[in-house]
Amino acid sequence: MSRTELSSLGEFGLIRHLTEHFPVQQKSTILGVGDDAAAIEVPAGMIAVLTTDMLIEGVHFDLSYVPLRHLGYKAVVVNLSDVYAMNAVPAQITVSIAVSNRFSLEAMEELYAGMLAACEHYGVDLVGGDTSTSVSGLAISVSAVGFVEKARMSTRRNARKGDLLCVTGDLGGAYLGLQVLEREKKVFLESPGVQPELSGFEYVIGRQLKPEARRDLVQFFSEQQIVPTSMIDISDGLASEILHLERNSGHGMVIYEEKIPIAADTGRVAEQFSLAPVTCALSGGEDYELLFTVGQSDYEKISANPSVSIIGYVDEPESSSRMVTRAGATIAITAQGWNAFS
Amino acid sequence: MSRTELSSLGEFGLIRHLTEHFPVQQKSTILGVGDDAAAIEVPAGMIAVLTTDMLIEGVHFDLSYVPLRHLGYKAVVVNLSDVYAMNAVPAQITVSIAVSNRFSLEAMEELYAGMLAACEHYGVDLVGGDTSTSVSGLAISVSAVGFVEKARMSTRRNARKGDLLCVTGDLGGAYLGLQVLEREKKVFLESPGVQPELSGFEYVIGRQLKPEARRDLVQFFSEQQIVPTSMIDISDGLASEILHLERNSGHGMVIYEEKIPIAADTGRVAEQFSLAPVTCALSGGEDYELLFTVGQSDYEKISANPSVSIIGYVDEPESSSRMVTRAGATIAITAQGWNAFS
Repeated sequence: MSRTELSSLGEFGLIRHLTEHFPVQQKSTILGVGDDAAAIEVPAGMIAVLTTDMLIEGVHFDLSYVPLRHLGYKAVVVNLSDVYAMNAVPAQITVSIAVSNRFSLEAMEELYAGMLAACEHYGVDLVGGDTSTSVSGLAISVSAVGFVEKARMSTRRNARKGDLLCVTGDLGGAYLGLQVLEREKKVFLESPGVQPELSGFEYVIGRQLKPEARRDLVQFFSEQQIVPTSMIDISDGLASEILHLERNSGHGMVIYEEKIPIAADTGRVAEQFSLAPVTCALSGGEDYELLFTVGQSDYEKISANPSVSIIGYVDEPESSSRMVTRAGATIAITAQGWNAFS
Repeated sequence: MSRTELSSLGEFGLIRHLTEHFPVQQKSTILGVGDDAAAIEVPAGMIAVLTTDMLIEGVHFDLSYVPLRHLGYKAVVVNLSDVYAMNAVPAQITVSIAVSNRFSLEAMEELYAGMLAACEHYGVDLVGGDTSTSVSGLAISVSAVGFVEKARMSTRRNARKGDLLCVTGDLGGAYLGLQVLEREKKVFLESPGVQPELSGFEYVIGRQLKPEARRDLVQFFSEQQIVPTSMIDISDGLASEILHLERNSGHGMVIYEEKIPIAADTGRVAEQFSLAPVTCALSGGEDYELLFTVGQSDYEKISANPSVSIIGYVDEPESSSRMVTRAGATIAITAQGWNAFS
């Protein structure tokens, strides 16, 4: 593989080179890459939502097993997931990267190819950003803009007593995918000749490396004229997100262990790692599914959607969130003490 | 001074702690910090502009002489400058930071105090962002949103033959401020007992550490009903920005050396460093003044504004930008080969 030094293009040349193939798909994009700012015409009657996220090498990703193309795709998807969590439709993103000389132009092309694939898949436009040097490693900052009718916006605040608590897809897989990748990295570092043992783990690895955002749910809500009373995306594990909804709405949530959706593949891998699958779902994170509450009047519509599981309900104001186990015991849902600064 | 470890708050606690004192000043801010995304209601008839910028420790700033409070202020200002360069008025920002354990909570409070001061001064709302760990050092990513009537937006594209080329304020000071700070750092490293010699350099150091964005010019354009045919902010030096306008409009620009505004203090410091003041203005960067073109019919209004200097004019299509020196020679304006990747 050839290697072209980033210095051969310079900062302006690099960002032009990397972004020139991105098409403009959105009517709302008045002005894209290449000016002091992008210009966006928000459709009549809509409000704009804006989210931002930063990914740091060695903290959020490990390039020894994350292909750059997947990283680019995921960096976009995690932001779109936040837009969908507002019940909004994403339209534009900006991308800033800081990159050291260790990376070649070809590596950056891979990263942006992944971003382009995500932009094409979700119909969003790359409208701005910059490229600069870093002292070490790679940092990626993505911001995303989307639109939603004001009356259809879903915050974390408005869950009401008796609402159904629901989640899309299945949980815990992304965390186990990470465990597999970390294990194989360790094996490789100890015995460089040994091939990584990834067969049988395709599902959970895919959940870790190639997450998708739940565009389908927001489309479903629109078609069915449902407005969730609250919604949040699952980036830090089900327990953490439930506690966010509790704090923001002032209502505890009750969930049933047996209702938490866990894929068969996820359960099987969890066993191999001697982990309870439900623990992976509660505390694993990075599943990028949507957790939401709807009124009971939407029960029939919701239960007809095979991608949605009703896992519990919203309890009294000032109650505390808890899980009813398969054995019938009730246990408090607590933050899993994950603390990136410790 | 007390030191509180970041780990004592955790990631969610930290971002809450740092942002809870930011007031909401803009009617357009429907939802600020604390949800999956912020929600912004764009005023009727306006379009939104969006810009983003990332600052990396060791590349864009050196904490050995940049106070964190100033850094926070500047991180916001450089983004607002891009919004003003669209002839738009900034309204919201998001801030993501990645920070290592080396930093204390008190240090982060200083950084956010500077951001708060900028938000208050410019009337913008902090509406989102996140905090994460970094392997080393501090990275700050700011995005800014502003509003402008579509017909009043100024891009880099529409300079026409015969337009006046103008610049606000004075140039070259920020670059010389950086030279002074770098020199005193070197002296300090070689002789730690020696006090830094900063007196007499207040002006240029202030230009480097405490830049302001040219809100006044956008207000002036609005009051005077002027729409600049093109506009750009000066972050990389006058020469580089002129070449951006040339490439984007297809017209070369002619400037007169004697018209380039340079403060007396800047000229004096340049001499001490054996630098030509005009070189600092052309290639220095970080002045965050605005460079713009207006039709000749706006000559009287423009020349009545004491903050604006008319430095030249827009030439024929496909001409090349050049400077007429004090001695009457004409020299090509070239990019000053600054290449962060080399």
